[in-house]
Amino acid sequence: MKNSTVKAVLQDPKLLQEIQISGWVRTFRSNRFIALNDGSTLKNLQCVVDFEALDPDLLKRINTGAALRVMGTLVESQGRGQNVELQVKELEVLGDAHPDQYPIQPKKHSMEFLREQAHLRIRTNTFGAVMRVKSALSFAVHQYFTSNGFYNFHAPIITGSDAEGAGEMFRVSTLDPKDPPLTEDGGVDFSKDFFGKETNLTVSGQLEAEAYAMGMGKVYTFGPTFRAENSNTSRHLAEFWMIEPEMAFYDLDANMDLAEDFIQYVVRYVLENCMEDLEFLEKRLADEEKTKPQAERSEMALIEKLRFVTDQPFKRVTYTEAIEILRNSKPNKKKRFTYPIDAWGADLQSEHERYLVEKHFKCPVILFNYPATIKAFYMRLNEDGKTVRAMDILFPGIGEIVGGSQREERLDVLVEKMRQLGVDEKELWWYLDLRKFGTAVHSGFGLGFERLVQFTTGMGNIRDVIPFPRTPQNAEF
Amino acid sequence: MKNSTVKAVLQDPKLLQEIQISGWVRTFRSNRFIALNDGSTLKNLQCVVDFEALDPDLLKRINTGAALRVMGTLVESQGRGQNVELQVKELEVLGDAHPDQYPIQPKKHSMEFLREQAHLRIRTNTFGAVMRVKSALSFAVHQYFTSNGFYNFHAPIITGSDAEGAGEMFRVSTLDPKDPPLTEDGGVDFSKDFFGKETNLTVSGQLEAEAYAMGMGKVYTFGPTFRAENSNTSRHLAEFWMIEPEMAFYDLDANMDLAEDFIQYVVRYVLENCMEDLEFLEKRLADEEKTKPQAERSEMALIEKLRFVTDQPFKRVTYTEAIEILRNSKPNKKKRFTYPIDAWGADLQSEHERYLVEKHFKCPVILFNYPATIKAFYMRLNEDGKTVRAMDILFPGIGEIVGGSQREERLDVLVEKMRQLGVDEKELWWYLDLRKFGTAVHSGFGLGFERLVQFTTGMGNIRDVIPFPRTPQNAEF
Repeated sequence: MKNSTVKAVLQDPKLLQEIQISGWVRTFRSNRFIALNDGSTLKNLQCVVDFEALDPDLLKRINTGAALRVMGTLVESQGRGQNVELQVKELEVLGDAHPDQYPIQPKKHSMEFLREQAHLRIRTNTFGAVMRVKSALSFAVHQYFTSNGFYNFHAPIITGSDAEGAGEMFRVSTLDPKDPPLTEDGGVDFSKDFFGKETNLTVSGQLEAEAYAMGMGKVYTFGPTFRAENSNTSRHLAEFWMIEPEMAFYDLDANMDLAEDFIQYVVRYVLENCMEDLEFLEKRLADEEKTKPQAERSEMALIEKLRFVTDQPFKRVTYTEAIEILRNSKPNKKKRFTYPIDAWGADLQSEHERYLVEKHFKCPVILFNYPATIKAFYMRLNEDGKTVRAMDILFPGIGEIVGGSQREERLDVLVEKMRQLGVDEKELWWYLDLRKFGTAVHSGFGLGFERLVQFTTGMGNIRDVIPFPRTPQNAEF
Repeated sequence: MKNSTVKAVLQDPKLLQEIQISGWVRTFRSNRFIALNDGSTLKNLQCVVDFEALDPDLLKRINTGAALRVMGTLVESQGRGQNVELQVKELEVLGDAHPDQYPIQPKKHSMEFLREQAHLRIRTNTFGAVMRVKSALSFAVHQYFTSNGFYNFHAPIITGSDAEGAGEMFRVSTLDPKDPPLTEDGGVDFSKDFFGKETNLTVSGQLEAEAYAMGMGKVYTFGPTFRAENSNTSRHLAEFWMIEPEMAFYDLDANMDLAEDFIQYVVRYVLENCMEDLEFLEKRLADEEKTKPQAERSEMALIEKLRFVTDQPFKRVTYTEAIEILRNSKPNKKKRFTYPIDAWGADLQSEHERYLVEKHFKCPVILFNYPATIKAFYMRLNEDGKTVRAMDILFPGIGEIVGGSQREERLDVLVEKMRQLGVDEKELWWYLDLRKFGTAVHSGFGLGFERLVQFTTGMGNIRDVIPFPRTPQNAEF
């Protein structure tokens, strides 16, 4: 008999039919009621066994975590909490889970403990819900771009360039780590390395995406990127996935339109497709918030926060206007910001971004036209000579979720900027070629996928929205 | 006025309407006909300029590769080769492409030359077609798995494990490459490295996928994997993308059913969605084949080869049967195989795989139940004690395209096998946990995405189906 899934059975229950289900025991109570989960959905299937008819040795093996195959008849449930249940006729224990040894018992586990059991934590309700929502978000990303005329492309992971300067990089090498070959002047001879030069893990696929946009028009990458930064925070990973669209002939306004439409689409997609998991996660978050001091609690429940993003246009504000607002704000005057705002040119911190979104505008905010001095070399210089066509999208709770810009398409301006900042022209010869041959206005943005998952699931620590997190001192599994 | 795309205009031409298009000049002939391409589709839009009304200085700048914005009226075309054309009223050169400097002139370029111009080759018909088909394949992968109840998950790229043994690995490190810290006994002290241990780039996400399948039921990865092997062939990359589904409660038969259905789905998807690009690529391939000796030419045209896969069931044959067929085959008897087949236990080479598919069965073939000695430690041992539940799918032209297996779910058998092969049990403690707690029959397979793209597009060299290939001595861009 073919296996059904719990999701299929609960979505369209065929009463009085014989079905077979395989899954794992979540709980077993009164020697009678098995809550069986197979990962297809948050809900369990209640399986009712007749313990008097069951071999006592078999009965003892029905423990939390054990894998079972059950066969029986689907009937209306007499009990509360479910509409249907399975009257078990046949039961096989596929794999035991000894109650003294299996770590994931039906009780509250700390997130820290579960991180140490990252291979097993996916068997909990919380991680099942997070990862199903994450998978739905991932599909929504591909669907959005595909249906809007974008082409997916794979930016290289190993790169010979370290020019982008987005952060510290990991070196990739096959040289003997202890006795590397040396050059005549005593440095490591990377010409003997696998790629014939020093190589690193990419920090961003943007520059390569620009090359592809200048041929295919609209492209996007969705792949892993890396930062070798010693940041042990709840918002940083050494390895994370980025979504980076890049569009020829898009100016900053078109870029902002796209980013807003894109984010609203993917968040709406999970609201439409993952409500059961979201309701569970909302409740989990509410329980967690109760343990925090009042001041640190979120003003919005999870689903309310998602609708806050999907149901209203984002407010667009120049950096200059934002600085005025922040300078005159109550927390600034009362010196409640950790980083007081006193002059134009200051880099905004999360506290400022959240003030603008949560207190001042009470809607998602797009800040644009930032000072050139605090942004990257490739951003389009405005006619004022001091601001660049950069934009950041700010969300409640987390601050910046998207960073993007119109790119500098003018060869002379770009070269001048690279010289000022010491970016190597020789290494980026091909990037300059894009301005030498058929250059045009173009734009793009980047969105850290795990940040989006954090926002959407309400998980406080980014290590809990990726299966096997990589952080300083940690590359287990 | 909003930009249209060439694809939108040609799909649904609104005659006599004013439209604006931005794109790049492919050719300009008779000072009158611009073939404009914007990457959205293979086809160009013919833009007709009135050269007598145009500023001669502007006219001179309409060169191959230049970026233009044109505005005008869409009319029925009088010429051959297109139904509609744009009568240009306004023309702006956004970016020049000097004919003496721009490398991608409208003539035949060698693939080797284009690889050196990987940032510009996407502006050619061939690479545009390949990358559009590749993008469609990528979307089809996500759509297939999502609509079949699979969850996407991200396997880690940086791994502390080197246990899988699928190939040589790249080391990832932030230690000083010249003077790394040493331990007391003189080895490199990796406890001082970023992750507190030696780390490498992953060769496969399978083991982690197994952990996730044992919680979520059906999962798949689609991400980059790496091999530090010095293989300079047309089929090997140091960095490539793999698709790896993993399913709890699937035995080898269910695994084969899935793999066959999956491949047929994605190939059918491009037949239904990319016919224009496929027809172009078929013609390209036919032209290329003409330059080869008769014996090396493919017997099938590109689209015929795709239908060969979608239109018939795959033949399932045991390894043992295949060896019998090969041993008694004409090329074996006439010693025409480079590696003659004389005994059970031999590893099959591409020549044998292609013989089975192209000459003997004349359909895609799934070989299964391989000798345990030539397969990996995690494959399910059969009751005969000498074969494992492995399967490979063989395709015309390329040989193996999929490799998979039912996984060994029995703790004692797995541990015994790891000891025999010297696989470190301590390092894979978490993998063994999956057999200690709630173990069950499960299966999965891996498909190298670029190999699939090669098959689907007919490109002879794998370096031409990835934007910026990484191979020994080459990590440019």
